[in-house]
Amino acid sequence: MKYLYNDTYFDEEAGGPIFFYTGNEGDIEWFAQNTGFMWDIAPEFGALLVFAEHRYYGSSLPFGNDSFSSPEKSGYLTSEQALADFADFLLWFKRTRKGVQDSPIIAFGGSYGGMLTAWMRIKYPHVIQGGIAASAPVLQFQGITACNVFNQIVTNDFDQASPNCSASVRKSWEVLNRFGQSDAGREWLSSAWRLCEPLKSEDDIGNLKNWLVEVYGNLAMVDYPYPAAFLEPLPANPIKVVCQSLNDPQLTDKFLLKSLFKAVSVYFNYTGSSNCLDVSKQDAGSLGDFGWGVQSCNEMVMPMCSDGVGDMFEPLPWNYTSYEQNCLTQFGIRPRPNMAELIYGGRNIRASSNIVFSNGLLDPWSGGGVLESLSDSLIAVIIPEGAHHLDLRAAHSDDPASVTKARRIERAQIKKWIKDYYSAQSSTNEIPLPTIHTNNSSPEYDMVLPDTPLPLESSEEY
Amino acid sequence: MKYLYNDTYFDEEAGGPIFFYTGNEGDIEWFAQNTGFMWDIAPEFGALLVFAEHRYYGSSLPFGNDSFSSPEKSGYLTSEQALADFADFLLWFKRTRKGVQDSPIIAFGGSYGGMLTAWMRIKYPHVIQGGIAASAPVLQFQGITACNVFNQIVTNDFDQASPNCSASVRKSWEVLNRFGQSDAGREWLSSAWRLCEPLKSEDDIGNLKNWLVEVYGNLAMVDYPYPAAFLEPLPANPIKVVCQSLNDPQLTDKFLLKSLFKAVSVYFNYTGSSNCLDVSKQDAGSLGDFGWGVQSCNEMVMPMCSDGVGDMFEPLPWNYTSYEQNCLTQFGIRPRPNMAELIYGGRNIRASSNIVFSNGLLDPWSGGGVLESLSDSLIAVIIPEGAHHLDLRAAHSDDPASVTKARRIERAQIKKWIKDYYSAQSSTNEIPLPTIHTNNSSPEYDMVLPDTPLPLESSEEY
Repeated sequence: MKYLYNDTYFDEEAGGPIFFYTGNEGDIEWFAQNTGFMWDIAPEFGALLVFAEHRYYGSSLPFGNDSFSSPEKSGYLTSEQALADFADFLLWFKRTRKGVQDSPIIAFGGSYGGMLTAWMRIKYPHVIQGGIAASAPVLQFQGITACNVFNQIVTNDFDQASPNCSASVRKSWEVLNRFGQSDAGREWLSSAWRLCEPLKSEDDIGNLKNWLVEVYGNLAMVDYPYPAAFLEPLPANPIKVVCQSLNDPQLTDKFLLKSLFKAVSVYFNYTGSSNCLDVSKQDAGSLGDFGWGVQSCNEMVMPMCSDGVGDMFEPLPWNYTSYEQNCLTQFGIRPRPNMAELIYGGRNIRASSNIVFSNGLLDPWSGGGVLESLSDSLIAVIIPEGAHHLDLRAAHSDDPASVTKARRIERAQIKKWIKDYYSAQSSTNEIPLPTIHTNNSSPEYDMVLPDTPLPLESSEEY
Repeated sequence: MKYLYNDTYFDEEAGGPIFFYTGNEGDIEWFAQNTGFMWDIAPEFGALLVFAEHRYYGSSLPFGNDSFSSPEKSGYLTSEQALADFADFLLWFKRTRKGVQDSPIIAFGGSYGGMLTAWMRIKYPHVIQGGIAASAPVLQFQGITACNVFNQIVTNDFDQASPNCSASVRKSWEVLNRFGQSDAGREWLSSAWRLCEPLKSEDDIGNLKNWLVEVYGNLAMVDYPYPAAFLEPLPANPIKVVCQSLNDPQLTDKFLLKSLFKAVSVYFNYTGSSNCLDVSKQDAGSLGDFGWGVQSCNEMVMPMCSDGVGDMFEPLPWNYTSYEQNCLTQFGIRPRPNMAELIYGGRNIRASSNIVFSNGLLDPWSGGGVLESLSDSLIAVIIPEGAHHLDLRAAHSDDPASVTKARRIERAQIKKWIKDYYSAQSSTNEIPLPTIHTNNSSPEYDMVLPDTPLPLESSEEY
């Protein structure tokens, strides 16, 4: 298991906290580079920064190159196992690294990493004192959130950028289908869109459409107010830029498709360095797509669907049976669709505490997020102008006021959790709550209950 | 996985709860028979009773007769896996059995079963609303509780029964060792103690002493105020009866050993049906001793030691290295000694809620129990005259007032948990806590977040 740390700002004397990133489905360096918020606020808190890589991603492969060779090997790729890694790692880190033995730990994570942060606090509240779960779709599971919400939010984002944009996209599917049916249509499209692999059959048009669906979703996720390179290098407000080419749904077929190509070029070729469009690739490659495919089949069953009415996509109902069949065919794995409900509680998490759930309303994943506070320590923060975990990114001059305010709330919560931790520590064994003795005539009893300090010796390697 | 249920008292119309026993290391029938408290209070609550057997015990063998054939098979014998079984079972039970869909669930457990009840609430607060963890030594782990506490409490129990009792036991070890060294001594002892297997070597005396150590501990556990047959059939206040034969530590060797045999006959032969003493047997056989041996090596490392000063035993320090070596030799398993600390939090469980930790002070396991309330919903109840989970047994005319009062507190807590559950249910989505919007100028946004009821269809078999 790989981990990164930085102690530049760590204030040992003041009992500085550990800020711990619960790594998600990719190289941990990439998350460390894209979580500027932790770096921005580390000096204020005197925090030690730690970023832990998730098992089966990046270079943290439990069975090396064999890690995905069979369901027996890849079966250990689950969120539960990852949380246990993090807990085990943190106890080890605290007992082996000088100066952090009593430090409180605050977890941070975005997207699936945000789910892990929330679930870590739910399952290991003795290890972490609180967590900032940014854009964490903990409710995006079967039976908890409707499957069409994601695509409705994507569509809304395009609608907001320009009124004709989603209409153009909606119209394009039928045109693409028609062009895919004939040799001439496929040839024209392959050339006009500069496809790396020319379209050979009707099936190929399906791959192209899948790529488009994913691109629209990705654009909605990274619709940041300044140029960024989270999934791909992109301009500020990329959907606005994309939609500049999609302002007339009345265009004839070829003009519509040409406009669409120009529009999506913003996504895959903003730098102008691509010679051709490769529809087998979704992003610059820092995410562990294959691992995520396996994990989606092990447990992360997040239903998606569209109906073409409330959204701009072709109708595609959620079909668990075919999802399961794909998992069986591709990996030999039968999924556990009710994992999130069973293990973490679904919507029923009120017994937990000290979690901020932040969600940007531009972000399609916000539909599966916790959008209402559940108690005075399970707090929902809404960022109306925010895309996918904008709040975790470094502060930027073009940040909307809403994200600056969200970060202020998050910092205040972190301060409170640290303060509560230290006051509970100092009161432990000093002012115990009254024990209920059921009889006043307690027998004479010489009980010895020494409070041996925890030795915790271990030779585990991380 | 075997489970038992009884719906005699279930009041569906009143929304009666499920009372759920978190089965421990033995046949589930035995726990159902020895947990009279649940049966006693079921009518008052209109409760449905469910008793679930723990994997690898009784007839719940995941790999049939092969379940213990290798560490690969027996490695799934852990408390974590058992808790996941219980959670999975309960969701299945609720969705398949008519009338319990919305019932709150209250867990009960004694001893290791009590640990499971506490840990179940800690890890699955969305599944159970609260738990009565009776005589649950959740702190009896390395680095958390001193290893000598157990034997000190056993010694205190003997001291309280009669002042000379522990002195007689303390003296007996040296005499036994001396008799074990010679053929004549071993012959005399084999005959006087009517041993099923005569002592053949010095090593055999070690087995005899181990048996005695366990018997003293068991007597302390089941030192109930009325005749009972929990581990073996016994009279009321068995330690008092045992100590009647051990009131003179000045006796010469053979008289001392004869007295000791008479004393322990109360334990192994109260009914008079045993023809000989079999030191390879500890109890009437309802506990899964072999399974517990494996589980102790997998994860349940509960250090024990004695020093002969604060206790009546021969000095025997805790030696983790030899414990580990035994596990490797016997089962091929390397233990995880910090499991309880890592997974469940050790002493650090204040983030949890709705648990009653009851402990009888006669019970040697109380030394590893939670003896002080940790919050207003993590409540320690002390029963000064109680032995091992006396409160979970059926009410009895010879019960001390302290256990009656403990049960009253437990019933009051259960009522509160059920009431809280129903009031949280009725307030859900009605009076949500204010969400923190970080900007008042929220964009127009047509978000659809339907609250689909959870379908939870599944074809799993239990």
